[in-house]
Amino acid sequence: MKFARLGDAGHEIPVVLDGDRHLDLRPLTSDIDGDFLADDPVGRTDAAIAAGELAELEGAGDLRIGAPIARPSAVVCIGMNYAAHAAESGSAPPPVPVVFLKTPNTVVGPNDTVTIPRGSEKTDWEVELGVVIGRRASYLDSPADAAAHIAGYVTANDLSERTFQLEVSGGQWSKGKCAPGFNPTGPWLVTPDEVDPQALQLRSFVNGEPRQDSSTADMIFPVDHIVWHLSQFLTLEPGDLVLTGTPQGVALSGRFPYLAPGDVVDIEIEGIGAQRQEFVAWEASR
Amino acid sequence: MKFARLGDAGHEIPVVLDGDRHLDLRPLTSDIDGDFLADDPVGRTDAAIAAGELAELEGAGDLRIGAPIARPSAVVCIGMNYAAHAAESGSAPPPVPVVFLKTPNTVVGPNDTVTIPRGSEKTDWEVELGVVIGRRASYLDSPADAAAHIAGYVTANDLSERTFQLEVSGGQWSKGKCAPGFNPTGPWLVTPDEVDPQALQLRSFVNGEPRQDSSTADMIFPVDHIVWHLSQFLTLEPGDLVLTGTPQGVALSGRFPYLAPGDVVDIEIEGIGAQRQEFVAWEASR
Repeated sequence: MKFARLGDAGHEIPVVLDGDRHLDLRPLTSDIDGDFLADDPVGRTDAAIAAGELAELEGAGDLRIGAPIARPSAVVCIGMNYAAHAAESGSAPPPVPVVFLKTPNTVVGPNDTVTIPRGSEKTDWEVELGVVIGRRASYLDSPADAAAHIAGYVTANDLSERTFQLEVSGGQWSKGKCAPGFNPTGPWLVTPDEVDPQALQLRSFVNGEPRQDSSTADMIFPVDHIVWHLSQFLTLEPGDLVLTGTPQGVALSGRFPYLAPGDVVDIEIEGIGAQRQEFVAWEASR
Repeated sequence: MKFARLGDAGHEIPVVLDGDRHLDLRPLTSDIDGDFLADDPVGRTDAAIAAGELAELEGAGDLRIGAPIARPSAVVCIGMNYAAHAAESGSAPPPVPVVFLKTPNTVVGPNDTVTIPRGSEKTDWEVELGVVIGRRASYLDSPADAAAHIAGYVTANDLSERTFQLEVSGGQWSKGKCAPGFNPTGPWLVTPDEVDPQALQLRSFVNGEPRQDSSTADMIFPVDHIVWHLSQFLTLEPGDLVLTGTPQGVALSGRFPYLAPGDVVDIEIEGIGAQRQEFVAWEASR
């Protein structure tokens, strides 16, 4: 099942995809948020469709696509989770998951225009598989318990400003991870029954030229390990977003230029969906 | 003016202090949240008191004290902002503010019992002046613009697990900053008219023995610089919480033992308020 949120930023309408139709979910929920995701969203949606309670949203194709989840209470990120990306960043593969956070207000629609931050010279892309939490997770006993806490998967671009992250940060990465619009998410929340999260090709392109092209099979720590591990250190809430790291092929490697105004980034994950962002100068966004 | 939130966790009632009385704010707002703080809370509360619209909350003294703000959209923290604490942590004073994040669900009441995380051997205290944002702050022109974006100040304990933060983290601190209950906040939100944020004594005690005893005058980067600086890298939202760093005198220094079950921590900031937490073992909290 695929959920989405369509409409102007801050006024998105929750929908479920039914073939190529978008069914308005508002008879069931006002938003794709933690409360909805914690309460059997697939079962309740299936029942509502079967009962004919969900009407097609007219004009859905003309609406902006928002992030497929309401603003989460936390965006928790795993760094260096693909060995070749760790190497291109000058790091050894980490022996345990490396955890950092983005501010939740970075989450925007998958195709929203992104402003290059004021003063940025090193804005970089990072295609990542995002995990959306469906059930509160605290001190899980084992990775095998993770699946029951996952509501679905999203495509995410963990945009990063490398000077802010690495050169003027004292080594703490969040300063380069939280600029406005730095977390395009979506287009869909894809429920777990449709996906094997460890067998997905993920790719990025800049102005049509290939950059990243790897498989989630190459993660050092797979999704179930990540969710279990995080739950030992913090409480994951329904609706929270966990980004699982990016593979090799970013500008930080030195192999490609950083993003400039006018650049267009495409990212896609097999079965999870594709995004396209145009990048604009900070001055042009005022 | 001092705002507070009284009652069971998740069901706190917003109040304003009027001498030793607690006036129920619910005729004005359902919570001490970003919407309330962004809309002239002092002026509106003064007017409501003058008009006799706010009744005393009966039995206020018997209620739990919650955090004085609703769950923020972000908790942004400054590391190593007192030179002597940087030294005791083995670091040089940073040339720019070091930024990390705590998950917003760590925010709890000032006197709530704190669970030492499962497996923790290095749970540590950190008294900090917290700044609550009153107006969206993005790309401020100068530190002089910060004041207009500050709703008030709180006492906060930036609890930290040093093994999680420093030894099994790959160097990213958030893993040791986000355990459940790791951000006691309050008792009050004190509005800026009552406070000079750079002239406050801040202290901590463990089982009545002194630990930290410094002044916010010793901050490397003062509050207005921090808010201005952060706004270059992320957008601060009304209701967000910014923790401004801790002074010397924590267990990480090696001078004091880490916290153990049964320990009681007191922290206080002059004019901003005092907290007391009892620490319990994870096993005892189940």
